[in-house]
Amino acid sequence: MISEIISIGDEILIGQIVNTNSVFIAKELNKIGIEVGQITAISDNSKKIINSLNLAKERADIVIITGGLGPTKDDLTKHTLCKYFNDVLIENKDVLDHIEEIFLKYVSTPINEKNRAQALLPSKAKIFKNNYGTACGMCFKKENVYFISLPGVPFEMKEIFEIEILPFLKSEFSRQIIVHKTILTYGLGESAIAERIESWENSLPKSIKLAYLPNLGRVRLRLSSKGSNEKQINKKINDSINELYPLLEDIIVGIEGETSIEKRIFELFKSHSKTLSLAESCTGGKIASRIVNLSGASQYFKGGLIPYNNNAKVSLLNIPRVVIDKFSDVSEEVAMRMAIEVRKKFNSDISLAVTGNAGPLKGNNNEPIGKVFIAVSSENKSFVKEFNFGNHRERIIERAVNKSFEILLKVFT
Amino acid sequence: MISEIISIGDEILIGQIVNTNSVFIAKELNKIGIEVGQITAISDNSKKIINSLNLAKERADIVIITGGLGPTKDDLTKHTLCKYFNDVLIENKDVLDHIEEIFLKYVSTPINEKNRAQALLPSKAKIFKNNYGTACGMCFKKENVYFISLPGVPFEMKEIFEIEILPFLKSEFSRQIIVHKTILTYGLGESAIAERIESWENSLPKSIKLAYLPNLGRVRLRLSSKGSNEKQINKKINDSINELYPLLEDIIVGIEGETSIEKRIFELFKSHSKTLSLAESCTGGKIASRIVNLSGASQYFKGGLIPYNNNAKVSLLNIPRVVIDKFSDVSEEVAMRMAIEVRKKFNSDISLAVTGNAGPLKGNNNEPIGKVFIAVSSENKSFVKEFNFGNHRERIIERAVNKSFEILLKVFT
Repeated sequence: MISEIISIGDEILIGQIVNTNSVFIAKELNKIGIEVGQITAISDNSKKIINSLNLAKERADIVIITGGLGPTKDDLTKHTLCKYFNDVLIENKDVLDHIEEIFLKYVSTPINEKNRAQALLPSKAKIFKNNYGTACGMCFKKENVYFISLPGVPFEMKEIFEIEILPFLKSEFSRQIIVHKTILTYGLGESAIAERIESWENSLPKSIKLAYLPNLGRVRLRLSSKGSNEKQINKKINDSINELYPLLEDIIVGIEGETSIEKRIFELFKSHSKTLSLAESCTGGKIASRIVNLSGASQYFKGGLIPYNNNAKVSLLNIPRVVIDKFSDVSEEVAMRMAIEVRKKFNSDISLAVTGNAGPLKGNNNEPIGKVFIAVSSENKSFVKEFNFGNHRERIIERAVNKSFEILLKVFT
Repeated sequence: MISEIISIGDEILIGQIVNTNSVFIAKELNKIGIEVGQITAISDNSKKIINSLNLAKERADIVIITGGLGPTKDDLTKHTLCKYFNDVLIENKDVLDHIEEIFLKYVSTPINEKNRAQALLPSKAKIFKNNYGTACGMCFKKENVYFISLPGVPFEMKEIFEIEILPFLKSEFSRQIIVHKTILTYGLGESAIAERIESWENSLPKSIKLAYLPNLGRVRLRLSSKGSNEKQINKKINDSINELYPLLEDIIVGIEGETSIEKRIFELFKSHSKTLSLAESCTGGKIASRIVNLSGASQYFKGGLIPYNNNAKVSLLNIPRVVIDKFSDVSEEVAMRMAIEVRKKFNSDISLAVTGNAGPLKGNNNEPIGKVFIAVSSENKSFVKEFNFGNHRERIIERAVNKSFEILLKVFT
């Protein structure tokens, strides 16, 4: 069973938005054993839409289309589909009632002509209601290919996809299973990993496909396999992973989706019954904001301080101004004191502090751009490490955040 | 001049990564007047790569290919291109030296066979060196169509694109200009805006295209036009924008790229010579982390406190425990006190505090999920506002962050 995704919208082709819809849809289709053969982005242009539908029809059994269903003039998808499938628009009373209802409930302005036109829908299509908006989903069938059109607003699309489309696809198609498992690693490069696991890779069963996914010093290894027996496929992949683990023990975080570096840290702190606090200068709250993405983080995370300028370091963290003046705010001394003081303030077992210069200018004491200190304070061990994360502001901050998580992951070892 | 982007990698088709490369490339090509007609993502599969190249060749003058150039077995692009262009691989001495050099400088492990093979390159292609990695860029020409292949690791691709590809494309093609300007608005829905600006929209010159881009209550309006005279196009678009501004005065942030809500706030605080501090409970540092994305933010941002549990609210913000017990930590009282206290702590002119329940469980005092209070404290005015941001954890946090920025934007009015 092969599918294709067609995203319609000039905003994708001019690089104004990231096409997250296709990511979501591809992931969901894979889960139910529907392979995605191609993802295409084209502009709001009738001719191009029709051309893409024709090409996709030859390659796929299911075509999922997103975008271009809004109430404004630039949205052409509904009219184009109507033309493509020789259909006409008729007013759908249920949908009109629903549009009136959501305007009554959430929007202060009254329903206008444009909103009303959203209830005009192709007569032959199966209609999927949009609980969060006015653009309905639609499904057409032509020459045994299903065409499903969904709105482009991500949370509206997701809602319809989860509630309507997934059960529909599951009921229409017998299931073939695709299993992907991705191992998260850190601290070793792609080719070094490849060399280390070469004989394991060569002995992998033919039915398992291996991919290396490197980015900013972190490599992910994905194993994929497909078939009809979910249990068998999972066993085969798990067997291979079990053989791989001992080879990468020192650099493995775990399986993507099942865990993440944030989750592992959460579990580690909980199993040790320890609490954490943070003092973030150059990372400005980014470590904390990733920690609190996990619900329940308050079980170990007591909170953080963002002393973004030196006055705050003095007044909130009691770091004597002479220390900052003597050593610089980007120094081993200040990082260590930040960690010690924030631990006291929050009365946490462990604390981590980051101070560095992310640029674009050299620091107060002429520290080079990219110089970052990360300090940890706890009852048993305290240390500061110095790093140089290059000269690109965004990447310096990102690398400082990543490195902090790696340090926290090893804090109990 | 029409281009297409082909992204190669199973990770895109299974929804494992977001295709940010195509966003970057599309934006850069647009800037130099090269339109992107289609973005296609396909898997690491020789047959599919060749098929896509054949189709793209019929529609485009330039085809940019990313991905599949790594040193590991799953990377097929280089060999496939070699086959497609009837070429052979030869060792490039310069590139080999470069690979050895970067391993010496950045990587502790010695160069291995896989790294060495990265210096094997198609004999007919123009080669673009990769300063940050081992996979070079390549350019082929066939039937007057340019095919440019680049690595998939985003920062490596960007570096080659900016330093090598852009100047190359500029020198090869005479420039046609495409100008996009996008107006950022907040607080009003798509169809209400469409109704308000209807007569303006109808009187837009035919050469200007208007698009509505809605997401989570924020609508962006994009005006696009193309031609050969940059000055003329810009004037035409600016004239239309000048007519639009008075119609949307109360909901406009500014032009995307030129400004953002964060930048506007930065400028506002600077022009009023005021400083800001934050107390973020449920948003856990996300407001701060967006503020510090702008370099120079320390000119007005003094820092923040993340009192993620109630003990921290008591000990760091001096909020009496009886107040929390009586009113709940998600209450008008606690939000206001958080704002007042954090302002004192950081000695800032203005402060903003957020406390709310992002779920997944009801709060300590049974507060419903989605209930959020945002408080502002300053010498002249202080207030608290209550919101309900729905029941989806991620969106609650995102909406609380967005709303906080909207409140800060109006803090001096």
